[in-house]
Amino acid sequence: MIKIGILGYGNLGRGVELAVNLSKDMEVVGVFTRRSPETVKTISSKVYSLTEVYGFKDKIDVMILCGGSATDLPKQSVEYVKYFNTVDSFDTHAKVPEYYLALDKVAKENGKLGAMSIGWDPGLFSLTRLLFGSLLPNGKDYTFWGKGVSQGHSDAIRRIEGVIDAVQFTVPIESALEKVRSKSNPDFTTREKHLRECYVAVDEKADKNRIEKEIKEMPNYFADYYTTVNFVSKEEVDKLRGKLAHGGFVLRSGSTSNDASHLLELSIKLESNPEFTGSVLAAYARAVYKMAKEGKTGAITVFDVAPKYFSPLSDEEQRKKLL
Amino acid sequence: MIKIGILGYGNLGRGVELAVNLSKDMEVVGVFTRRSPETVKTISSKVYSLTEVYGFKDKIDVMILCGGSATDLPKQSVEYVKYFNTVDSFDTHAKVPEYYLALDKVAKENGKLGAMSIGWDPGLFSLTRLLFGSLLPNGKDYTFWGKGVSQGHSDAIRRIEGVIDAVQFTVPIESALEKVRSKSNPDFTTREKHLRECYVAVDEKADKNRIEKEIKEMPNYFADYYTTVNFVSKEEVDKLRGKLAHGGFVLRSGSTSNDASHLLELSIKLESNPEFTGSVLAAYARAVYKMAKEGKTGAITVFDVAPKYFSPLSDEEQRKKLL
Repeated sequence: MIKIGILGYGNLGRGVELAVNLSKDMEVVGVFTRRSPETVKTISSKVYSLTEVYGFKDKIDVMILCGGSATDLPKQSVEYVKYFNTVDSFDTHAKVPEYYLALDKVAKENGKLGAMSIGWDPGLFSLTRLLFGSLLPNGKDYTFWGKGVSQGHSDAIRRIEGVIDAVQFTVPIESALEKVRSKSNPDFTTREKHLRECYVAVDEKADKNRIEKEIKEMPNYFADYYTTVNFVSKEEVDKLRGKLAHGGFVLRSGSTSNDASHLLELSIKLESNPEFTGSVLAAYARAVYKMAKEGKTGAITVFDVAPKYFSPLSDEEQRKKLL
Repeated sequence: MIKIGILGYGNLGRGVELAVNLSKDMEVVGVFTRRSPETVKTISSKVYSLTEVYGFKDKIDVMILCGGSATDLPKQSVEYVKYFNTVDSFDTHAKVPEYYLALDKVAKENGKLGAMSIGWDPGLFSLTRLLFGSLLPNGKDYTFWGKGVSQGHSDAIRRIEGVIDAVQFTVPIESALEKVRSKSNPDFTTREKHLRECYVAVDEKADKNRIEKEIKEMPNYFADYYTTVNFVSKEEVDKLRGKLAHGGFVLRSGSTSNDASHLLELSIKLESNPEFTGSVLAAYARAVYKMAKEGKTGAITVFDVAPKYFSPLSDEEQRKKLL
């Protein structure tokens, strides 16, 4: 049994716990939290205070870090990879190179392996972009996200004065997807690929016009998109949020000669983004376990992991059953 | 530049030549043929007699074997991996384990690396089945092929007395695909997933009823399917065959908890099966080159190749641009 630790227990930590429980070759040894352990209700795992984590140095094969990318992971990854092989879902794209270098250095110094930026994007979608691009070098690729809840954008709306709660759906524009599938290799502006639907619950006395304007004009988050704002009750926001459904598409069209073009498409439809992301982290925890056993150390991403490592089957069984 | 040899020059060899010509980091050093070299017309590559191939031992980094799986590859792979790193598209599923063992032994004895069963199925689809299955262990997967030309089935029809030429299309049944996408985890009989459309040109005096009966009752090939037989002219068969369009789908639906299920789908639509397969072989030739440089020897499949190896970008560029 591969012994897994879960560090941080929000939606993602819970998703990891579900995924590990579904895997016959892995078990959760403990959930580690900054909160008071008795206040954290897991599905079936024991909960420990984060301060106790160092005592598990020899009892955990892979520690899955389930904190946030903004402030948690940059500190946690380089701290805990001193003691554990790790997997994390770091997704601040612009900071990937520096994060990699920092993690790689500490991991190598301590003889550990740390898999970073694991999930579906970055992660499964990154792998697919690299794969499709290598198979059809003379082509163009496109990533669409949704329909699904963007937690970053929902948070941004919640920070506006007068807003009680909000949920934001990123919606791929169907006609844009169809243009890509027609292999016309279109160029899109940001506005032409996705729209943003916002459902917002506000204080009774709040100025809805001001809030709508603040949302629609928010730089980086909404200003470059066609955005709709719907004012609804707090209960409606909760219901729409549901289990955080999401999904997306990676497409590449390309040609191999003047009269032969091809279309490759990956699509995923997720009823729960954190549960699926948790499943990806669990599969890569298995890979980290196997690769660390072979002596691999340092930082790795999805690009460094051969498919055989994330399957519970032996190499022989894989060739026999799946090739 | 990665120096590529192409051994065998039919549709697939030509597809490999096109793909290598499109890759800025690879070049074709020579095409090797059993035919008289002067009778073989390539796009731009020099043609040599197969007997000359041993003189290229130190001039070729990777030899791509473009022979057939039935008789060519089982002999050629173990012969040429003595002298070259190789890539092949061996696709006789039942014989994969013994082929692997034979290739692995000779490759290791000679310090070479041989990638086997590369293409889209086996190959890209195998990788996808393993990946999807690892990400959603509690689920079920489905592979559909087509719409596209099955060369094996077309050949089988051509062997019937009175048949001049024939082309067979494998067609996935849309309602079956939709059942899978609805995540109902259906069970299908062979007949419920695909149908087989045959276009057949026959001798003037041939007995069409007998030919149609022979096709529809042919064991393994047609007896288990709903099959249609259309008698057309030789010209019509040629036109329908075209550039050997093909495609297919790998789907997996699965759940991570009682109230969250997910759907993963890869689809490919190819205007030319041999040209796309040639592109896959070329991308894995790059992987073989890079892995051999790192000292890897023996037999490998798509399961053994980390994505970073088939991209022409450096690891740093991959992380910066594609993660």
